[in-house]
Amino acid sequence: MTEHDEQFMRRAIALAQEGIDAGAGGPFGAVIVLGSEIVGEGYNQVTSTNDPTAHAEIVAIRNACRKLNSFQLDGGVLYTSCEPCPMCLGAVYWARPSRVFYAATREDAAKIGFDDEFIYEEIEKNFEHRQMKLVNLLRDEGLTVFENWENKPDKTKY
Amino acid sequence: MTEHDEQFMRRAIALAQEGIDAGAGGPFGAVIVLGSEIVGEGYNQVTSTNDPTAHAEIVAIRNACRKLNSFQLDGGVLYTSCEPCPMCLGAVYWARPSRVFYAATREDAAKIGFDDEFIYEEIEKNFEHRQMKLVNLLRDEGLTVFENWENKPDKTKY
Repeated sequence: MTEHDEQFMRRAIALAQEGIDAGAGGPFGAVIVLGSEIVGEGYNQVTSTNDPTAHAEIVAIRNACRKLNSFQLDGGVLYTSCEPCPMCLGAVYWARPSRVFYAATREDAAKIGFDDEFIYEEIEKNFEHRQMKLVNLLRDEGLTVFENWENKPDKTKY
Repeated sequence: MTEHDEQFMRRAIALAQEGIDAGAGGPFGAVIVLGSEIVGEGYNQVTSTNDPTAHAEIVAIRNACRKLNSFQLDGGVLYTSCEPCPMCLGAVYWARPSRVFYAATREDAAKIGFDDEFIYEEIEKNFEHRQMKLVNLLRDEGLTVFENWENKPDKTKY
């Protein structure tokens, strides 16, 4: 942990406050740093943009990737004002920065009314115990498309 | 399960094939249905748009919410050509459709080289056992912003 880490985290927390002040969405901010430069920022914009996926981390990842013209953030660091929810943690794994710093925890988020902890609990359950019903349908036809992907010679893997 | 469910799933699978043919990204498609109408569609666009979050389900959810002017999909149904990854399943919980149909499974996706199963395993681990390093930093300052949110009188909850 360095002084720079604290500086970037304070920027993420300031973004969370900016989002509150702008009425953009929930109280969450995030920055992506590559080397010692901020390459992407964001605050939660769920309610103002009618986009349930517009969490701070997702917004920051998308902005950073757009700036870098890359779908990967190798060597990048995410600073987020709150522990990522499962959606955002999933996005982190797909974007592949090298590490994540977070300030408030999922339990802190639950205390102010956000579902992060509930969703973590749900995702870890077997299908039959989840509140969300997930039903398998036409698997064979889905697999046919996977075969077509496997046989495509010029695909970009990720 | 009805004939309509199969019809909508076939549309999701057809979108996956469209995405392959367009060179848009991985072989995944999704539709959101409300009542008996498709209100959002999408296929994976990760590599073509440099957006690691542009999975089929996320694209379809964003399109449906934009069309409905809502950050919630109450009563909606998601049909996806493959079991949602943790990012997309998290997005489903935030968008709150009533159920999800999927064709191929996370294990099927793993077999053609996608990380879904790996990310599920990671998310269920305690922090110290994850490959991704998550480090707590400046929690107190993060909590201050949460208090400001709590004290904001005109906030939109979600």
